[in-house]
Amino acid sequence: MPATQSTRERIILAAVELFYSQGYEATGMTQILKKANANSGSFYFFFKSKQDLLDSVLDWYLANLEPVLWRPIYAATQDPIERIFALLDGYRQKILATDFSFSCPIGRLALEIGLERQNVHDKIAANFDAWTAAVRSCLGDAEHRLPSGTCFDELSQFVLTVMEGGVMQARAHRSIAPFDNSVRQLRQHFDRLLIAAAESNRNNQSLGEKL
Amino acid sequence: MPATQSTRERIILAAVELFYSQGYEATGMTQILKKANANSGSFYFFFKSKQDLLDSVLDWYLANLEPVLWRPIYAATQDPIERIFALLDGYRQKILATDFSFSCPIGRLALEIGLERQNVHDKIAANFDAWTAAVRSCLGDAEHRLPSGTCFDELSQFVLTVMEGGVMQARAHRSIAPFDNSVRQLRQHFDRLLIAAAESNRNNQSLGEKL
Repeated sequence: MPATQSTRERIILAAVELFYSQGYEATGMTQILKKANANSGSFYFFFKSKQDLLDSVLDWYLANLEPVLWRPIYAATQDPIERIFALLDGYRQKILATDFSFSCPIGRLALEIGLERQNVHDKIAANFDAWTAAVRSCLGDAEHRLPSGTCFDELSQFVLTVMEGGVMQARAHRSIAPFDNSVRQLRQHFDRLLIAAAESNRNNQSLGEKL
Repeated sequence: MPATQSTRERIILAAVELFYSQGYEATGMTQILKKANANSGSFYFFFKSKQDLLDSVLDWYLANLEPVLWRPIYAATQDPIERIFALLDGYRQKILATDFSFSCPIGRLALEIGLERQNVHDKIAANFDAWTAAVRSCLGDAEHRLPSGTCFDELSQFVLTVMEGGVMQARAHRSIAPFDNSVRQLRQHFDRLLIAAAESNRNNQSLGEKL
């Protein structure tokens, strides 16, 4: 990483912060330029419009997903199922650290940006896909502990669903309870999957001994 | 209901539609007045500001939850668990009917409106609470079919989580699959609860016969 940020990087980071803290529509060009300490000439050298900048913001999130979100979890936690719950716990910490104002920046854009802007939604979907692909990879690492026939794609999207729905309700309620409640239900869901697989493995082993 | 809408009602309904279709921030006063066929004098007779109007929009959603969302489900479906899944299927139909542009209007506002506007978030939370209270009531009606000790508050918030997370992903992906996948996982979650309760009931019955 270069010691000083380029103007382009400064503009993207300013937009990341402003779109996150106040939303895309509510953020004006003047605010972005002021926060980035850039003038409108350099803005239009790099970006065609605020819409174009949003594309780069979504690329930035996608590029940072692995190093910022997942790498620390992979370093700290070995158990693949616990890695999934460590990811969710990271969101819990963000909710608490921001005094409940946290919202998932991608989820927020998914609901805010009109569907006619297909290229933006393609990038939002790509962010969701990268998130669920990493969860799916954890599920793959725990394959022998899950019932055969478990649909990893489906289950990984369900984990994202739980995060997004939990974050949204925690924000409105200014309380961690709806998030915790949702994660606790997800934990029960996983526990039952793990128990079902363990029982099935025992039965197969016992059958194997008898044959 | 009066044969003609009052000016106040027309303004609220125009705002309901505009905040829903394009978001709160992106909606200007001029648009609201035009859609409501009202002038600014009559607007300010009823509302202090666009912010004040948002309060009335959230009251409108709360008042319509039971008659619009639940009453048809209660009329059409008797099984309390199936009523919950009929509710979710209603959202599925909305996603399909809007060609994936549907988003939950309350969920969208939960993420869009800044947390400093506590009275707005109180009303958003009241809408969430009314939704989950109705789900909780269905769970209460199915109490004998669920394991003893099931936390109905937690499970009903989990159902809302699944709806919100599923709707959000379906919108970004322009595909019903993420919603269907999430609901299918929730169905499995419920099936396991129903099976666990049935087994426990059988065991208790069998124990009763032996005593």
